[in-house]
Order: sequence, then structure tokens, then C-alpha cells
Amino acid sequence: MAIVVQKFGGSSVATAEKIKRAAARAVAAKRAGRQVVVVVSARGDLTDELIALAREITDRPSAREMDQLLATGEQQSIALVAMAIHAAGEPAISFTGGQVGLVTDGVHTKARIQSIDAVRMRRELAAGSIVIVAGFQGVDAAQNITTLGRGGSDTTAVALAAGLKAAGEDDVVCEIFTDVNGVYTADPRKVPGARKLDVVSYEEMLELASLGAGVMHSRAVEFGKKYDIPIYVRSSFNDAEGTLITKEADNMEGIVVRGAALTKDLVKVTVRDVPDRPGMAAQVFQRIAAANIVVDDIIQNISHEGQTDLSFTAAGTDADAVREVAEALVRDLGAGGVEIDDGVAKVSIVGVGMRSHTGVAGKMFGALADAKINIQMISTSEIKVSCIIGRDQAEAALRAVHDEFDLGAEATQ
Amino acid sequence: MAIVVQKFGGSSVATAEKIKRAAARAVAAKRAGRQVVVVVSARGDLTDELIALAREITDRPSAREMDQLLATGEQQSIALVAMAIHAAGEPAISFTGGQVGLVTDGVHTKARIQSIDAVRMRRELAAGSIVIVAGFQGVDAAQNITTLGRGGSDTTAVALAAGLKAAGEDDVVCEIFTDVNGVYTADPRKVPGARKLDVVSYEEMLELASLGAGVMHSRAVEFGKKYDIPIYVRSSFNDAEGTLITKEADNMEGIVVRGAALTKDLVKVTVRDVPDRPGMAAQVFQRIAAANIVVDDIIQNISHEGQTDLSFTAAGTDADAVREVAEALVRDLGAGGVEIDDGVAKVSIVGVGMRSHTGVAGKMFGALADAKINIQMISTSEIKVSCIIGRDQAEAALRAVHDEFDLGAEATQ
Repeated sequence: MAIVVQKFGGSSVATAEKIKRAAARAVAAKRAGRQVVVVVSARGDLTDELIALAREITDRPSAREMDQLLATGEQQSIALVAMAIHAAGEPAISFTGGQVGLVTDGVHTKARIQSIDAVRMRRELAAGSIVIVAGFQGVDAAQNITTLGRGGSDTTAVALAAGLKAAGEDDVVCEIFTDVNGVYTADPRKVPGARKLDVVSYEEMLELASLGAGVMHSRAVEFGKKYDIPIYVRSSFNDAEGTLITKEADNMEGIVVRGAALTKDLVKVTVRDVPDRPGMAAQVFQRIAAANIVVDDIIQNISHEGQTDLSFTAAGTDADAVREVAEALVRDLGAGGVEIDDGVAKVSIVGVGMRSHTGVAGKMFGALADAKINIQMISTSEIKVSCIIGRDQAEAALRAVHDEFDLGAEATQ
Repeated sequence: MAIVVQKFGGSSVATAEKIKRAAARAVAAKRAGRQVVVVVSARGDLTDELIALAREITDRPSAREMDQLLATGEQQSIALVAMAIHAAGEPAISFTGGQVGLVTDGVHTKARIQSIDAVRMRRELAAGSIVIVAGFQGVDAAQNITTLGRGGSDTTAVALAAGLKAAGEDDVVCEIFTDVNGVYTADPRKVPGARKLDVVSYEEMLELASLGAGVMHSRAVEFGKKYDIPIYVRSSFNDAEGTLITKEADNMEGIVVRGAALTKDLVKVTVRDVPDRPGMAAQVFQRIAAANIVVDDIIQNISHEGQTDLSFTAAGTDADAVREVAEALVRDLGAGGVEIDDGVAKVSIVGVGMRSHTGVAGKMFGALADAKINIQMISTSEIKVSCIIGRDQAEAALRAVHDEFDLGAEATQ
């Protein structure tokens, strides 16, 4: 029998009314002849409230106890959703991450899923129950509660679908209910002409997710890609189709650029005149990693006279930490100096069609030039082109690129 | 090494400040050279808030999902207490009922403890950690979360102490922190001269608990009695000694009456002229039990002319249900009629010394007579005498009895 895993985020279960609405969706899917697994997050602002409570106790709560505390948010949601489904006349049973056999490593607050035991889920589904599972959480081998970190509930949903598929179910899809209608060619709040996509490939979605499109976390998309789980991103407020995230299909090539994205708050660092010998880049980025700074893009151009310039970008919130490390690096490596600009942004275009099309990058640069936007750095991947620009021109750049590739027009596929 | 199990109720962990105070007590006990287990309830009104939330969803929430929901309250408390102990500089680790191996039967909302696995607790204690356990909850054999019902956290605390003792620890005591200084000769809010007891036997405490003294639930006391765990009832607001609940000792006999208690809100039912043949009482009380009415005392006096009067008391809140069942009984059994008085109360005296003393009951009846209080029914146990009286005279009766036995005076022991 076909199985659908439906995931509802915190805003979709924030009140009794919304919980009932989510329950009604699960019941409708069941009555349409499918087996239904529901994954839920903590209600509305509950997680933030619990974090604030912990901060009243201590500035540095232990990661294990933080997980023990935060996991209660999802546990409340699953019980309430189960009650709402009962009230709507269908059998339902709720499970915490531990109860459903979702085992992770022991890295609290950002655990990685290691295995899922689909036995109990399948038994309950076969018995006709809607199964409700707490998102965002699991247990380690010693039954300590762990949480999956950002985007964790999406990851739970796709991972459960993958677990059911691995257990022999062949028709498993995932529905991510959110407060937007799907995945757009660009953020509709920034680009009025942005258009909802009917379909997007895992690869494109991964680039878009990492570029801050914000609809789904990349970990969940990676899981979907690895286990080939079709993922529908849909609105919790209406019955529109949403966007299907799936593997790359032939007809996807018809579209060269699928979407455009903006990462607005970046800091750009250039360490100048670094001695150009083997191991230098490794030293630089090992020390940056040791300071817990996540590097976004790295750019090194050819060297001149035995020296080279090494540039990278990082989240704007890390600007102070970046400055400290970079200045220490200059001293220790005998580099020429450091330049830091905490006022940059990144505009990117993504599309699997780029692989077989030429001229895409040039067309993007031209659009930015026409809009009088200076490109400070460029980096590309197989299906992406990114330009670092001044933050004050960020949204103008996004609109210029979106227009240039005609992303707002109806798709040809 | 000596082990103390400290239990803090919901009001003792209601705010960050109170959580820190509870943590400080645990830390002090550890630094005084003991191994420490802390059992906590849900914060303040959280349980009531969660119940209200469930009622917004449905009038009849499933018992399993209710347990799944309510167990989050204690889980939040243990994490916060662990953080507070860390902040105070001691290692600590929190466990849910399931994590600590507290296994119950599968009767949701009023589960009974079946076994406790002390292995993980002992390992953490031996490693120097303060162990924090969620009260009120366990898991059944299938890892479903269960709750223990009223007084559940007290029961958890005493049961953990019993589990540690059974695992080979020979010096285990339990401390129940509450908002009063200990167990009193009578409710101090009703009897100004009531005096705090230094020591009380399990048997006396059981009678006082069942009589509504309200300091501790009888299930916890039963556990203490069965496994011989000394229980200290102490105030969370000061360092006073509190009351020790322990097994009956010789010197306890010096005091004939330990305390007096009042159960204020009762309904009294008399089914009159019941045909006096075998099986009649069984029929009556099976039907009352089937209506989920908990009977307090039952009194049947000798029969006359083949008929007898059967009286019982129940909680005043059950008055309507009682009336319905009693009237049906009269029809079905051919009894003479039913009399219901929902304005009665019960005053009782309790003391293990009664066993070896005569005249205690007569002295009590005399005190009530002197106070012009009519005794409607009498029932006794080996260590208790109870009188049913009019509710309007309830507190006067309690004071009269308390004075008669000189309970406010310093003990002679």
C-alpha cells in the first residue's frame, strides 16, 4: 500500500485549531487509501521558551540536558496530534524518536541518524493506525535523547520514509507542509515576479538550500537524494500541489536556470600575499575551523612572484571571530595583510541544465553589469554560479538575475 | 556509601530560582559525603496547563496519549535541575523514567511499578554524578510511556530508594521536600495547636494519608513500609528536621494517639431494609465499583427481621453518581429505600499505641459528646477510630479530639 510521510512544522501545530487542521490532513490521506506517518515539530515558540528557561538557570547548559529539555516540545506535539486524529475518528498512535527506533550517534544538539527500526511503524500502519512521530529527535545507543539540530524535523520525515522504503515498502513519498506554497524561482518577498516551481531536482534543491532559500534544510534533501524519496513541499494553508523534489529527469534539461538565491549577510576576508607553498591553505582553514567558523566559499587565484591572495566568505555573524583569526594568521604566516569587508552578499543561479549549456555565467555577469553592480568575487559549481557583491545592492542583483533568465515566465516543460 | 533520594514537588521547582535552590540542596548532600538521587515533578502548574491543552483538542483524550503528553512536564524539570547542579559545580545526569529502567504495567494514567533497574543509577552514582530522575512516570514492557497517577513522584522516590537497596546498597533514605515542615498531629490550618511530629510509623502514616492528611500519598508510604526505607518529610523552605516515617519502634508505644485527621467532603448513603442473604453486599458494592465510585468506609450492623441496613461513605464529588446507583439498587434488590446525606465529614484518630490501650474510642466519643457533636456512624481499624459527623461541625470535632488527646503538647518519647 502507498505510504505518505507528512511533516508539519511548528507553526502548523502552534494552536489547538492548527493541530486539528493538521490531523484532518492526515485523516484525509488515510481515507484516500494511503498509510500515513505524521512527523511534527514543537508547537510555535515552545522551543525558544525552553531555551530561555535554560538560560535563566545557566549561561552554558550541557548539550545532553539541552536535548533532554528540548525533546519535550515535539513529544507534546505528537500526543496532541494523536488526540486530534482520534477525535476525527481514526486510530492513531504517537512515538518519540526513541520509541520508533530512530538511533543516532551521541553528538548532542546535532546528532546524525544512524539507523531506523521500521518494525513498529510498519506493524501499526498495517493495523490501520496513523503513526505520529516526534521530529528532530532520536536516541543514542545508550538511550540518551539526542536532537538533530537545524532542519531536524524535515530530516526525520525523509529518513522515516527512507527507513520504510529500505524495509520493503516500494511506494513511499514525503510531504513537507510549510507556510509557503512550494519552492520558488527566487524568494517571493524579494522578487515580486518569482514563480513557484512544479519540480526541482535534489541537486538543485541542495544548492538552493545551502544558498539560504530556507524552504528545506539540505540534510533532509540529501537523505531524499540518497534513498530516492520524492519530496513534496506544500502549503499547510491550502490544497495546492506544491513543488516536487525528485531525481533529475530528462525534461528538466529544458530549463537552464531553475532559480536564483541570495545569501545576504556575509563577511568577505582576503589574506594578501600569502607565501605560495604547499600546506599554506591547509594551515589557514584548519585554524579557521578550530575557531568554529563555518566557511562559505573559498577563492584562490593564481600566484604572482611567489605569493598569492586567499579569499573566503563566512556568515556575517562570525565577523568578529573571523577578524581575530585572520589577524593572527597574518602574523604567524608572514602574509602581507588582511582585508575584511563585512558588508557583502552573494547572489547565485542554480540549474542542472547549466551542465550542457554554455554562456550562462556570462549572461549573469552581463545582467549585473547592466544593473551597475560590481562583482567582487566569483565561484561556480557544476550547476551553480555565485557572485559576491555589495550587500546594499543584494536585492537589486537578485531581481536583475531573475529577470535576465526569465524565471518568472511559465516553464516550457 | 550512604545514599539519599531527595524528592522535590512541583512547587519546589516552579521557577528558575526554586530550581537553583533544590539543586543547592542536592549539592550540599553530595558534599556532605552522600550519593544523591533527585526525583522531581513537573514545574508548578505545567501539568494543569497541558491537561487544558488536551481538552482544547478533545473531551476524551486517550490515556496513552495523555501519558505521552504529561510525562514531558517532569522531563523538562530533570533537565533544568541537572543544568542547575552543573552550574553549582557538580556533575549530574538526568533520566526519564524509561531511561532509568522504571518499568510499570500498561495501565495508563495509573500504572503500578513492576521493576527498577538500578544498574545505570549505581554506575552514575559511583562515578560521582548526582542522578536526577523524572518522577511520576515509567515505561511499560513495549516502551510506551506510563504515569503513576496521584502521588506518583513520591512513589517514584521511595521506589528508587527501594530499588537501590534491593541492588545491595544498605544505607538508603528518602527525603520528601514539601511546603510544610513535616507531618503534624492535625492539619495546622484547622487546629492552631497542632504540633509537628518527629517520628511516625508507616502504619500510622498510611492511615493519615488515606484520611486526607495530604502530606504524602499512601502508595509511597506502602513502598517505604514494604522495603523498610526511612522517609523524611521536610520543608523545602528551611533546614528543619522534618518528620521521620519509619517502622514501628518500641518507644512509639508511649504515645497512644499520634494524630487526628479530617475528611471533610463526604456523602453518606444508607440502603435500608436490604434482604439479609448471602451475596447482597457483594452485589451492592460491585455495582458501585462498576460506576467508578470509590467507597470510603462501609458499615453494616446486625440485621433485624431478615433485613439489614447497609451504609457507606464516598467522596462528596461523587454524590450524584452515588444517588443514581443507589436508587437503581433499591429497585433491583427490593430494598426498603435509600437515604443520602451529602453533608457529612469524618474525624479520625490514629496511633499504633491503640493496639495495647483500652478506652481510646470511648474517650474520643466523650470528647465529641462534650462538644455537642452527634456521631452518625462509627468505624474502626486496629490503629484508627473514625466517626462520621455533620460537615458543619467538622473542624470543631477535629479540635475537640485533638485537645482531648493532648496532641499539641510536647511528646513524652
